Amino acid sequence: MRRDANAPLGVFDSGLGGLTVVRALRAALPHEDIVYLGDTARVPYGTKGPGTVTRYALGCASHLVARGVKAIVVACNTVSAVAPERLRVELDLPVLGVIEPGARAAAEATRVFKVGVLATAGTIASGAYPRAVAACSTRVETIGQAAPLLVPLAEEGWTDGDVPRLAARRYLEPLARAGVDVIVLGCTHYPLLYAVLEREAKDLVGPHVTIIDSARAVAREVASFLADRSLLRSADSPGTIRLLVTDLPNAFDRTASRFLGSEVDGAEQIDL
Amino acid sequence: MRRDANAPLGVFDSGLGGLTVVRALRAALPHEDIVYLGDTARVPYGTKGPGTVTRYALGCASHLVARGVKAIVVACNTVSAVAPERLRVELDLPVLGVIEPGARAAAEATRVFKVGVLATAGTIASGAYPRAVAACSTRVETIGQAAPLLVPLAEEGWTDGDVPRLAARRYLEPLARAGVDVIVLGCTHYPLLYAVLEREAKDLVGPHVTIIDSARAVAREVASFLADRSLLRSADSPGTIRLLVTDLPNAFDRTASRFLGSEVDGAEQIDL
Repeated sequence: MRRDANAPLGVFDSGLGGLTVVRALRAALPHEDIVYLGDTARVPYGTKGPGTVTRYALGCASHLVARGVKAIVVACNTVSAVAPERLRVELDLPVLGVIEPGARAAAEATRVFKVGVLATAGTIASGAYPRAVAACSTRVETIGQAAPLLVPLAEEGWTDGDVPRLAARRYLEPLARAGVDVIVLGCTHYPLLYAVLEREAKDLVGPHVTIIDSARAVAREVASFLADRSLLRSADSPGTIRLLVTDLPNAFDRTASRFLGSEVDGAEQIDL
Repeated sequence: MRRDANAPLGVFDSGLGGLTVVRALRAALPHEDIVYLGDTARVPYGTKGPGTVTRYALGCASHLVARGVKAIVVACNTVSAVAPERLRVELDLPVLGVIEPGARAAAEATRVFKVGVLATAGTIASGAYPRAVAACSTRVETIGQAAPLLVPLAEEGWTDGDVPRLAARRYLEPLARAGVDVIVLGCTHYPLLYAVLEREAKDLVGPHVTIIDSARAVAREVASFLADRSLLRSADSPGTIRLLVTDLPNAFDRTASRFLGSEVDGAEQIDL
């Protein structure tokens, strides 16, 4: 099927966390139009079983396909862990997940062949990162650390001070003990805590530690993907961002702005 | 309709947090059989709109009615805030929520006519506690404080140490400044953090502070309710606890045991 380079990019996530990926895409691809769908009525996916997550993901992706997107970025680690192949097969459209780009960047960056991953309990339990890293290099060992407190800290906006610092240290310590030199932020919420995580990682692991922000890794891969296939939008005007949600959560604007890094013009509520 | 005193009590919540209510019910009413339904596939309700929450709550409650329960305890603050009347009307069955008992206990305990409430952002935004307290005494002012970090702390089992202590202090400080002498734990997860919340509240508010654990307040009211209507089970054997869930979450047994305070025999997965 011939795709239209001027069609928008579709991005979806279980909630608003995926807006950090939109922010990174906007920085890497300022001319692209983006349609973002946050399934806020059913957030979070991380606590749900693979069958449920796949069904929800197909619902989100099909809605974006109906809006004529040229490719889909799955800005959700849970979906990227369980359903990417299924989405590719069912949708007949390019589908890019958030796990492979971060895993690839980590496998390339490590000098000691040990990579740490901070993610939600669901993503860690899925084993998706060890698999994705092993697909890049069988020499690299992956050590996962579930970090459930980081999502509410990011949503609260508690991004510096003692609570995030101590929580970050508690999650980073096992990775430091394991001897990693690269740490992947394997959840779309974590870029909001980048500064505190980087500071504490430098202290615990050492100044040479590399922090991989999955959102930026994804944006770089999407940019090359579109360029390689001549699918970049041909326009000099800045691209638009359209927000769709399945429920309007409390304090939507404030939370969405925090993740997107700029003001939000409001969102359209849709039914899936 | 004549009810069977030997029928089980039905209890439901969006997830597993409501098991703290089951724990308190078990302590107050050791002979009652309890059927607990945790809607773990759709947890949390707190981020969803009132229409969605009401629809989900009706689904849970109807399932318990079909299992022949004699009364329903809504062990979910979000549902108790938005849907109790609707449930009572539609189900023709006694429905007891978690908000009124805690609010009543708080209104009775305060000597300075100022009550603080710690709860999720959704419960605070609903205004349900100020309304319920005002229904008991118009002289009492209610000061709400959203405390989103306490749920993941309870789920993580981080119930003592610096992180819960500092988070507790951050949430308690505005209540202390407002001059409350009673603090309601307005979320079913918070009893797990009772010790740290009580200690920090005594330090910030003063040794005279009263902490109201909603779960225990509900259990006391359920006990009088059943006794008043001759609905107590007539048996000397200990009651059974049956767990139903809509999805089997990660580390189900460990999390469920933590909330219930005793080992869990496993749960039956149902479809709503």
